[in-house]
Amino acid sequence: MSSNLTCRDRVQVMSASIAGVARSSAASRLDLTKLFAPRAIAVVGATDAANAIGGMPMRYLTEFGYAGKVYPVNPKRETLMGLTCYASLLDVPAGVDVVLVAVAAKFVPDIIRQCSAKNIPFAVVLSAGFHEAGPEGQLLEEDLLRALKGSGVRMVGPNCLGLLNVSEKVHNGFGAGLAEKNYHQGPVAMVTQSGGYGFTLIKNAHRAGAGFQYVASIGNSLDLNVLDFIEYFLESPDIKVVSAFVEGVDDGRRLVELGKRALEVGKPILIWKAGKTAAGQKAAASHTASLAASYALYQAAFREGGYVEVDDFEDFVDISRAFLASGKLPEGKRVGIVTGSGGAGVVASDRCEEAGLELPPLSQTSVYQLEGVLPEFAAIGNPVDISGQRTKDGSSVSNRAAEIVIADPGMDMLIVRSRQTTSSPAHAEAMADIRDKGGKPVFVAMGADEDYDSKAALDRRGVSWHLTVGRAAVAAAALADFAEKRRKHLDAKDPVRRGFEPGKVELPLGAGFMSEWDSRKVLDAYGIASSGTKHLSRAEVAKLAALDLKFPVAVKANSVNIPHKSEAGAIRLDVADIAAVKMAAADVIASARHYKPAAEIDGVIVQEMASGLEVIVGAVNDACFGPVVLFGLGGVFAEVMKDVTYRFAPIDKATARSMIEEIRGAKLLSGYRGQAKADLDALADIVSRLSWLVADQAERIDSIDINPIFVNGSRLSVADALVVLRDKSDGQA
Amino acid sequence: MSSNLTCRDRVQVMSASIAGVARSSAASRLDLTKLFAPRAIAVVGATDAANAIGGMPMRYLTEFGYAGKVYPVNPKRETLMGLTCYASLLDVPAGVDVVLVAVAAKFVPDIIRQCSAKNIPFAVVLSAGFHEAGPEGQLLEEDLLRALKGSGVRMVGPNCLGLLNVSEKVHNGFGAGLAEKNYHQGPVAMVTQSGGYGFTLIKNAHRAGAGFQYVASIGNSLDLNVLDFIEYFLESPDIKVVSAFVEGVDDGRRLVELGKRALEVGKPILIWKAGKTAAGQKAAASHTASLAASYALYQAAFREGGYVEVDDFEDFVDISRAFLASGKLPEGKRVGIVTGSGGAGVVASDRCEEAGLELPPLSQTSVYQLEGVLPEFAAIGNPVDISGQRTKDGSSVSNRAAEIVIADPGMDMLIVRSRQTTSSPAHAEAMADIRDKGGKPVFVAMGADEDYDSKAALDRRGVSWHLTVGRAAVAAAALADFAEKRRKHLDAKDPVRRGFEPGKVELPLGAGFMSEWDSRKVLDAYGIASSGTKHLSRAEVAKLAALDLKFPVAVKANSVNIPHKSEAGAIRLDVADIAAVKMAAADVIASARHYKPAAEIDGVIVQEMASGLEVIVGAVNDACFGPVVLFGLGGVFAEVMKDVTYRFAPIDKATARSMIEEIRGAKLLSGYRGQAKADLDALADIVSRLSWLVADQAERIDSIDINPIFVNGSRLSVADALVVLRDKSDGQA
Repeated sequence: MSSNLTCRDRVQVMSASIAGVARSSAASRLDLTKLFAPRAIAVVGATDAANAIGGMPMRYLTEFGYAGKVYPVNPKRETLMGLTCYASLLDVPAGVDVVLVAVAAKFVPDIIRQCSAKNIPFAVVLSAGFHEAGPEGQLLEEDLLRALKGSGVRMVGPNCLGLLNVSEKVHNGFGAGLAEKNYHQGPVAMVTQSGGYGFTLIKNAHRAGAGFQYVASIGNSLDLNVLDFIEYFLESPDIKVVSAFVEGVDDGRRLVELGKRALEVGKPILIWKAGKTAAGQKAAASHTASLAASYALYQAAFREGGYVEVDDFEDFVDISRAFLASGKLPEGKRVGIVTGSGGAGVVASDRCEEAGLELPPLSQTSVYQLEGVLPEFAAIGNPVDISGQRTKDGSSVSNRAAEIVIADPGMDMLIVRSRQTTSSPAHAEAMADIRDKGGKPVFVAMGADEDYDSKAALDRRGVSWHLTVGRAAVAAAALADFAEKRRKHLDAKDPVRRGFEPGKVELPLGAGFMSEWDSRKVLDAYGIASSGTKHLSRAEVAKLAALDLKFPVAVKANSVNIPHKSEAGAIRLDVADIAAVKMAAADVIASARHYKPAAEIDGVIVQEMASGLEVIVGAVNDACFGPVVLFGLGGVFAEVMKDVTYRFAPIDKATARSMIEEIRGAKLLSGYRGQAKADLDALADIVSRLSWLVADQAERIDSIDINPIFVNGSRLSVADALVVLRDKSDGQA
Repeated sequence: MSSNLTCRDRVQVMSASIAGVARSSAASRLDLTKLFAPRAIAVVGATDAANAIGGMPMRYLTEFGYAGKVYPVNPKRETLMGLTCYASLLDVPAGVDVVLVAVAAKFVPDIIRQCSAKNIPFAVVLSAGFHEAGPEGQLLEEDLLRALKGSGVRMVGPNCLGLLNVSEKVHNGFGAGLAEKNYHQGPVAMVTQSGGYGFTLIKNAHRAGAGFQYVASIGNSLDLNVLDFIEYFLESPDIKVVSAFVEGVDDGRRLVELGKRALEVGKPILIWKAGKTAAGQKAAASHTASLAASYALYQAAFREGGYVEVDDFEDFVDISRAFLASGKLPEGKRVGIVTGSGGAGVVASDRCEEAGLELPPLSQTSVYQLEGVLPEFAAIGNPVDISGQRTKDGSSVSNRAAEIVIADPGMDMLIVRSRQTTSSPAHAEAMADIRDKGGKPVFVAMGADEDYDSKAALDRRGVSWHLTVGRAAVAAAALADFAEKRRKHLDAKDPVRRGFEPGKVELPLGAGFMSEWDSRKVLDAYGIASSGTKHLSRAEVAKLAALDLKFPVAVKANSVNIPHKSEAGAIRLDVADIAAVKMAAADVIASARHYKPAAEIDGVIVQEMASGLEVIVGAVNDACFGPVVLFGLGGVFAEVMKDVTYRFAPIDKATARSMIEEIRGAKLLSGYRGQAKADLDALADIVSRLSWLVADQAERIDSIDINPIFVNGSRLSVADALVVLRDKSDGQA
């Protein structure tokens, strides 16, 4: 699926994007227009055998209405399906934009060289038998890479199912997905790392009424990868919704940047990340070489950018329909609900709350107006339950209620579920006028899967309709989340500001742990102070007479070889005075020696005892996502409750603050149970500074743990620190 | 929807079921056979106006194929739709089993009296205008209740949509749900508290291929309620799957008992509990009088019994199909997966893990056998990815792989998703043979929503098929959960054993708090000891010279009027010696007086200081679910993380132990981070004893809090205790 290259070598590339520089300018942007809409396609390995890989696309391209030219290539035939057949790709006429390759793997590198010779810009390689086929295939894959290098040819695949352009009838590949002749057309594009599952998704979505414009199955993505397609789709004027089925990406940082771009251009990326669970990651690893970065980091990327996570075809259908509907994005998360059944109102309320939406009460004006429209004993609240009440003149009570609720200044969106709206096309159409007048998104839930004329009317007018209220709520939440992220992103467009001047960081050569004291010096250079902490050499301990610290103190052996001091017995707590410090120092050094006789011990660290709530601030230079900073509650909360959150470094203090505020246990930091309110500003400052440290030193730093920091009101005590280095060469796989 | 009665008066009834006595014998069991399959139906308020409430059922009953007799009742007509029309219900011939009532609310009580006069056993009242219609309707409802009392008539409704019997074409009600003529038939029954939403559900499920036998919309359920129908369906031989759309029940304990009965008879109850969230509960309260017991207690009832929680129609469709499939329930949660696409394997793995299923590795034998069947570079693991490899002889590789995997002794179930199984009816049918030979449940996921002939073949042979692998996993998990609960229930069929002899409990008259010391005496009678704790009167404090406790101690004012001592300043911690105890006692009494001048203060409690992990053990006598015991982590874990679990009292020690082990933070109790392992047996003993206390004293106890208990290895210290009493008369609403 993806190449075997790790992506540490992208760390340098990231540095540019980190600084806030746009990744690609319009000039250098990858243009896949001819790949999706070729003037002519040459099919290498063409045949008229109906079930052969080279036979299926021949049939689709000649029978479904593709208007371009098709040149079959097969040395054994002179004509094929009434077309002139060419002995070699070198013989086909000029003007070919895409070569579809359906020959045995061993011939593929040569075909690429022929594409290059003929200046053909794109090859789509269906052939399997590369790295997925063991050592021999691996060699072939290397040969293919050599053929590609400098060829000027961009390749999709190998081992893919091909590409689809619905409106131009380019069914350029094989399999049940491309055999479907009449897909609904819509301004939606999908790229899928799994051809088989991706087209299952497309077909199910199609049957539920969703339309597509482009679909790309990318197979091993030896050249063009999932992010290339996402980027192209984001920049394509004919695409409004981008979607992707993804098991893993090589370049997490580019995923983050594309998420930002999605917010800028206002197009959502509907993404299904498969391989979320341990079992799913294991399954993915067994059949692809995708890097299994932690799902938590993918989630962080999705949350920051214009991604909408989905995990079945219904989500695709409902969320894409909502984004394609006419009108503006919602200005907030407040939903008004109008329903014709009490039960539906309860379900709608459940689903809205589960999806993170708000159901504020109606304004007094709205209540007053509704009282004029509804029967005496209808339930006037949010939801408004019109109680199935019918009017004598045949007008729709639900539409009249909807008109009032959408005008309520306390509502950002409207969900309507009433057969008085959906069982009549005229009333359904009137709902579009109500939406237009109200200027807010409207989601219409059907009473049941029927009322085809009303659905058609809603489609015609670009009103988002949904099979159930649950799905309407999911769609509304997706729109509101995207809109909120977009507003935030557009407001905070500037590059992240540093806001402080770091000192010089000295890092030893080579990979491995740094001692606690050296780790603290690194932190200190970035303004993360180790107050109440001193380093003493053995000589200094010997002649110790006074100590400028508040007793009791902790005494720890300081060694580059003993990163986990507790398990080595290399730490003493609650040491009461100078004499005890001397004894404790001797003890911890002896324990460390006993634990690891060859350990290099650089004196001891003496530190004032601290208490309070434990928090963790950490940084990891992830192989896929680059420098990442994490914040979480420490101790049992981290390990049992996994209450941590991530951001891509560097971040400013405001973002660090939002990390602190979003963990589940956040209220423990805000003066819970009479404890002092933590100095969240100072804590955010540490998180932001650490994020700059790992970003600036990404070439050398593997990870940093500040675990724990004791938080006691305004007093923050760094109780331990550990920097882990990598060799500079580790970055080059 | 439900009556306005609270259900505290059911506490006594519960006591019987608590003791393990079966609630109802076969003799007293409610028989609704004639309600669903009447020989004759009288329609009171019959008309031929097509859209009138009394007109719709006339059409359905005369046009859809109902074989019984229909007697329209309408004084203004002599014939109706070619049938003799009667002026009064009193005039209709004998043999009527059900009267369908579609007249104005004010006439309904009289109709019930007429039913009684004619010995008609059932009335289905469609008419609205009762308690949902304000004070006047409330009076009418009371009138209706009086008419019912002693009438011998059982009533469905009022304010319901009616009943459906699919095979006998009894469409006995009105609305779009009953207007559908040709529902698929299947041994599934549903009762719904929301007619509108319930029939939406039915119609969506029908369109997805699900069949039903009975549907009951129960409206206000003034007489027959949701639990009556569940009970009837459980005992009906023609029903294999029971389902319910429920907003709330009056008698939570009966819900629990029906869950046990479901396990005994081996029929699942698929239940959609609407009103789970705060917003949903609020919406439910606005349109019904359902008691809003905490969703957590419903979940506890569902978890203990044969319930399967669902929350959209797709769940109904997939889970009912799985239960209706031929073959045995699974013996465990271990799933083998065979797939034709790597991506589908990843998705299937994610979904299985999310659903709580296990994907163990294949046995060596299975791997060896698969190597003989699959191409060299197929991924042989779990999932098995057959890589789309086709055989030359047209046989199905996925079926051959399935045969091997189902025989693996490490697997309890099989999920297959491959078009080599589903695109050919013959291969689909062969899968049934594989299932039969393997003797384990098989779930077939479709490649896409097509292959109609294969679906028909699978249906014919009773193999569970699903639109996506995700849904197959949900269905497999539902089956495995039900099977596990069933095994456990059948193994532990005996009544709960007490295992100890309680002492005498003295409770003062009247409702309200008990003082901490009196609360501790109540606990002590049930063997929950207050070690290291003493009560001292003010006189005893004055002459205190020695104290048989380990210092330091805590000193607290003991008062029936000050249940929350901290906020009253009525507690001093870390008191070091006798002199300090005397001072502290004076302090806390003064603080208590200052806080509440009229407080009755009964000396002080002196208690050894304790530390350790805080846990909460509590009991509540819930208005709907009766006596309930809870266990959870205390302090911040309870309040911030809401890490608590519930059971219905009484429970034995083994069940209490399973509560302790199922909370998220359970590992904090098992020697986490070098702390002493908690004495879980002793803790479980406390939980079980408290459950007996609240069950035995259900008439008087409103709630008990033991919060916190400090757990420090084998030392358990009850740090505070609070019993809250109710008046005996509180039990009678």
